[in-house]
Amino acid sequence: LGSNHEWQRWMVSLFMGIFIGFIAYLAHVGVSNILYYKFEFTKDLISENIYLGFLAYFTCNTVLATIGSLLAVYYEPTAAGSGIPEVKGYLNGTKIPHTLKFKTLWTKLASMIFAVSSNLQVGAEGPMIHIGAIVGNGFSQAQSKEFGFKIPFLRSFRNDKDKRDFVTSGAGAGVAAAFGAPLGGALFSLEEVSSFWSTTLTWRSFFACLIATFTMRLLQATNLTQHGLMIFDMGVANKDYAYNLLEFVPFIVIGVLGGFAGALFTLINIKVVAMRREKVNKVKSLRVLEVFLISAVSTILQVFLPLIFPCKEISALSNGGIGQSVLAGNGTSSGSGEIEIEGLKQFNCPKGQYNELASIIFASNEEAITNLLSINSVDLTNTHRISIFALLVFFVFYFLFAAYTAGCGISSGTFVPMIVIGAAYGRAIGLIVSYIVPNYAGLDPGAYAIMGAAAFMAGVSRLTISLTVILIETTNELQYLIPIMVTIMVAKWTADLCIHPFFDILIEMKYIPYLEPHPSKAMRLLMAKHVMAKKPVFCREKEKLGHILHILHETKHNGFPVVNNENDRLVKGLILRSQLLMVLERMHDVYVPNQEQAYSHQDYTTKLAWKLPNLDDLAFDPADHNQLVDLTEIMNLTVVTVNEEFAVSEAFQLFRTIGLRHMPVVNSNNKLKGIITKKDLLEKTCEQRYKELSHLKLGVDQLLHVGDD
Amino acid sequence: LGSNHEWQRWMVSLFMGIFIGFIAYLAHVGVSNILYYKFEFTKDLISENIYLGFLAYFTCNTVLATIGSLLAVYYEPTAAGSGIPEVKGYLNGTKIPHTLKFKTLWTKLASMIFAVSSNLQVGAEGPMIHIGAIVGNGFSQAQSKEFGFKIPFLRSFRNDKDKRDFVTSGAGAGVAAAFGAPLGGALFSLEEVSSFWSTTLTWRSFFACLIATFTMRLLQATNLTQHGLMIFDMGVANKDYAYNLLEFVPFIVIGVLGGFAGALFTLINIKVVAMRREKVNKVKSLRVLEVFLISAVSTILQVFLPLIFPCKEISALSNGGIGQSVLAGNGTSSGSGEIEIEGLKQFNCPKGQYNELASIIFASNEEAITNLLSINSVDLTNTHRISIFALLVFFVFYFLFAAYTAGCGISSGTFVPMIVIGAAYGRAIGLIVSYIVPNYAGLDPGAYAIMGAAAFMAGVSRLTISLTVILIETTNELQYLIPIMVTIMVAKWTADLCIHPFFDILIEMKYIPYLEPHPSKAMRLLMAKHVMAKKPVFCREKEKLGHILHILHETKHNGFPVVNNENDRLVKGLILRSQLLMVLERMHDVYVPNQEQAYSHQDYTTKLAWKLPNLDDLAFDPADHNQLVDLTEIMNLTVVTVNEEFAVSEAFQLFRTIGLRHMPVVNSNNKLKGIITKKDLLEKTCEQRYKELSHLKLGVDQLLHVGDD
Repeated sequence: LGSNHEWQRWMVSLFMGIFIGFIAYLAHVGVSNILYYKFEFTKDLISENIYLGFLAYFTCNTVLATIGSLLAVYYEPTAAGSGIPEVKGYLNGTKIPHTLKFKTLWTKLASMIFAVSSNLQVGAEGPMIHIGAIVGNGFSQAQSKEFGFKIPFLRSFRNDKDKRDFVTSGAGAGVAAAFGAPLGGALFSLEEVSSFWSTTLTWRSFFACLIATFTMRLLQATNLTQHGLMIFDMGVANKDYAYNLLEFVPFIVIGVLGGFAGALFTLINIKVVAMRREKVNKVKSLRVLEVFLISAVSTILQVFLPLIFPCKEISALSNGGIGQSVLAGNGTSSGSGEIEIEGLKQFNCPKGQYNELASIIFASNEEAITNLLSINSVDLTNTHRISIFALLVFFVFYFLFAAYTAGCGISSGTFVPMIVIGAAYGRAIGLIVSYIVPNYAGLDPGAYAIMGAAAFMAGVSRLTISLTVILIETTNELQYLIPIMVTIMVAKWTADLCIHPFFDILIEMKYIPYLEPHPSKAMRLLMAKHVMAKKPVFCREKEKLGHILHILHETKHNGFPVVNNENDRLVKGLILRSQLLMVLERMHDVYVPNQEQAYSHQDYTTKLAWKLPNLDDLAFDPADHNQLVDLTEIMNLTVVTVNEEFAVSEAFQLFRTIGLRHMPVVNSNNKLKGIITKKDLLEKTCEQRYKELSHLKLGVDQLLHVGDD
Repeated sequence: LGSNHEWQRWMVSLFMGIFIGFIAYLAHVGVSNILYYKFEFTKDLISENIYLGFLAYFTCNTVLATIGSLLAVYYEPTAAGSGIPEVKGYLNGTKIPHTLKFKTLWTKLASMIFAVSSNLQVGAEGPMIHIGAIVGNGFSQAQSKEFGFKIPFLRSFRNDKDKRDFVTSGAGAGVAAAFGAPLGGALFSLEEVSSFWSTTLTWRSFFACLIATFTMRLLQATNLTQHGLMIFDMGVANKDYAYNLLEFVPFIVIGVLGGFAGALFTLINIKVVAMRREKVNKVKSLRVLEVFLISAVSTILQVFLPLIFPCKEISALSNGGIGQSVLAGNGTSSGSGEIEIEGLKQFNCPKGQYNELASIIFASNEEAITNLLSINSVDLTNTHRISIFALLVFFVFYFLFAAYTAGCGISSGTFVPMIVIGAAYGRAIGLIVSYIVPNYAGLDPGAYAIMGAAAFMAGVSRLTISLTVILIETTNELQYLIPIMVTIMVAKWTADLCIHPFFDILIEMKYIPYLEPHPSKAMRLLMAKHVMAKKPVFCREKEKLGHILHILHETKHNGFPVVNNENDRLVKGLILRSQLLMVLERMHDVYVPNQEQAYSHQDYTTKLAWKLPNLDDLAFDPADHNQLVDLTEIMNLTVVTVNEEFAVSEAFQLFRTIGLRHMPVVNSNNKLKGIITKKDLLEKTCEQRYKELSHLKLGVDQLLHVGDD
């Protein structure tokens, strides 16, 4: 049994990985082709006539953004945003409708392709995580209500735990394929996404990430693209000499600034999301209009901001610098040989010159990142290919637009924007340092750009290990491992002082009940009786049909304690709504009105439920409502009941670590006194309760001595 | 409260990391200096007179090994071996005496330095893990019974959870410092060591690993050594062209062979350990003698095996190859300029020639690894610096000695030996492939050596993610990420078919009760009543002094359910042995014989116990044994009790995920019926029980429907 299932799990992971790699490849091909033709078409127009070129570029961008938005707003609204909060919420035990549907998948995919190729300040990686999660769910279940098929052989995976496992590794594989970072993907799903985790799952997740990346790489090889979707090649760095120890000073400064900037980014986005919810989201057309306006303003700035910068001579950059870096992978520069070296853009300039801001702002995210990270420790001239002023203008522009755009009515992620923003200010600080210490030849602005990206991402997301690995894998620069780790820690600490992590806030704003990894202080001072729902709805072991129908109709609870009788209320087990519905459906199948009937356990289990029955379809003659239904055979005997004095912090741990959903509370005679569910254990609820109870003056010492030894 | 403690945790992690980095540096300095002088002294003698040289080398090695063994056998026996099983066992909830004492730390450190520098086939990394765990424990507790000090300000960390957390991150930091691999260290403690884990702990562990590595690097920089303790610099590989897709075929072959070889290694070592326990371990002097003999035989072979190989011209290796690789970090080659290029050893040969086997066998582990991993994709001559035959002789020698030595009476690890063994056979396969496909210029035997190391380590340890990261970090070759991952997965699967993981078997052989990550099949078919101890020893809420003394004397249980009275036996709480002892000590402090006394809760808690009292010191007049002690105020109300029908698999999850240690079993009236402790949930125990109960013909379906939804 176990072994066979285990192999099936590996096989499912294999196909899941291949499929996710394939989707990532589709996204890559879609985005890079649209971008290629768009830029090919507009760049020549711009160098001839700036207004004509602008018009073409403006039309392309706004049309793409509007189509992407129409899909996400009208066709499948769950597809908007990155989907990370929804996936995290699901893995924490909260089901959000439509989150894991295939319709969401391909709407999201299409909308994301349009969004990224419209040069909005968004990325593809958040949606890829959500898409990976959907694939994980779909493959493991081997069924789809939407498409009306169900494959019997994976039936055994149709339980919460397996589903969660596959969703987790699917999300990881999504990251892995998007960044071309298999280790980073596995670690991301471990660090950020998952609420429940095991060593076995680590292995399978790792495998799925590996396969997804591998598939992606293989497919790309046929497309003559040598680099991954997001491999940022910085050129060949000097391996023998990476950085001076004193450079940790600016790196730490970058970390602190990144922490603050990340906190500010989060704060701005929260305000925007709150405003948007109030003013925009209620009318669908307004949501599309907003996306159109963002795209319009952003595009205007992308074209006209560079005009304030003078043209620079490409030949001023020494030959040592030129050709060191490899071109970005999306092919926009191919065929225009001598002028657009290393992604530098001619834009409005004459031949042989380039516009420094246009090189990063009138460009794809990958081109911008390649410019920002470019390494040239030897040649100081090339260091200044983009000036501090251009970097700061770009930083402000991208920061504000990314912070505003995140969460609007289009499928979009914030990962790549975070890298771009961070790399811009990091490189700027690198240049500032090069002015302060002009004689230090080893200074490498590309390294500062990496530190900036690391710091800003850590400031927003608070990721540590997975972020480090993703950055190392995408830049291929292992020698910066320790400075990256230091910068990330500093940024994380700084941001932790200011504001909660970005995704946690988003989860809260979306009203997804989410249990944090650790119980809060208030929980340690409360007992089960303080937080439990006091009048739990229960069934008796032999319960009247009418009462069952009543509680199913009148409550939305998912689980009901089963007690021996009305008076003693000794807890005997727990029955789920789905189990009650199943019992009623079996009864209904053989139902003859107005006749005493006997149902056995076998009746309940002979056919497996593919789909839960609709309660309204299960009508019984009211005269039969007094018939008794025996629940003893079908209820769960494995129910964790706790005493009224049980510490809430420990109850929290049970919910968080083993995924408990219903916890009946009993007195010392095992009499049912209440029930605790997830919503009773949210941090805010418990803090509220604690305030209400503060007159009880619970001693800390008295309650801290909980648990075992 | 929480925030303040949190900062203290970070500070403790900081100092812990620094201290562990410092110890790793000490170990490094010790080992590399002893090795340097030993080889300097003996190599000249050998090239002059082989027998005289042998005598010197033999004396050095056997004396070093014997001293290392004397320390580990006589002074502190816990210091023998790697200590990994003990640390894993501790983190799984089993306390093993002496495991976390400082005496163990420095005995282990000294013994390990002697062991490694005596050229036994052992490594320093296993002991560093144990040492890191001891430091983690010591720092977090800020007290030591051995040294008799206790610092009050970290008092709040003196609980099981915090202790476990610090031990976990300490172990990780030990790996990190040993390998110079901060990410790998953090992931190792996550994947291999830890039984309980949280996101917050990930961050702190990551931090401790970073600090440990950083300290180590800083200290080394002052010692003019540019490389980390274990950074295997393979030279500059061709970044643009890493490997051909077809090379996955030999890589997979390496994976399969690595899986089998790893299983064989494990099997041999088990047999040796069992034999050793039977024949050697009972007499201490025999244990030392065994180490002496191993060292003697190994040394003889190290000197005389190379003599069967002819000398080779160094000049036959093209200049393109020479100088590409950087010298190994331990300085043995410094000062002997032109002859010992890249660790090639002159040994018995004339000047300008080298002995190929001596270059890897008459060498430190680092030198051997540098030779085995050396990359030279351009120059095929250099590829054959060590022939297939020499590699295979070395492989057999090292494999057998490492498999035999592991677990003998000296402090020693198996990590570096695994790398050496794997790299040897991997490189051999690389050379074989180069004969099969002679025209393929891109073939790189160094890459095959990495794959071999990955495969063999995975075959033995079954690590995946952390192993990948450690290999990438130590070799600095990110371009091999995907082949390494594939090879590791293949090796792991192959070995999984053959035998349990090495460390799991060691844990079992050491009789450490260990709960695996997942419940076994039998557990899913059993109920609590099937595995519980049927006659639990309990206390009443008001219990007679005599009965308390009786159960403390007569049982070794660590926890006792507290019930209302003898007849109803309603479970009211749980009291720990330590709590009972504390109560008795407080009573004893104010005890007046033959007088009715009242003790209040305040009496118990006014002074904090630094050390548990000795039971024998707590004598009461037998006439007072009928006095009642009120336990209600001090017992734990937060006790997880379960029903007799509770599924054992779920009980297992509770023990494994939240670290439960005592689980009273009650009937539906809450009457105490039994108790489940860790030993009842071991895989073997449950399988035994299931066999005994198989006549009950429990239906699988009936019992699989456990848990929530």
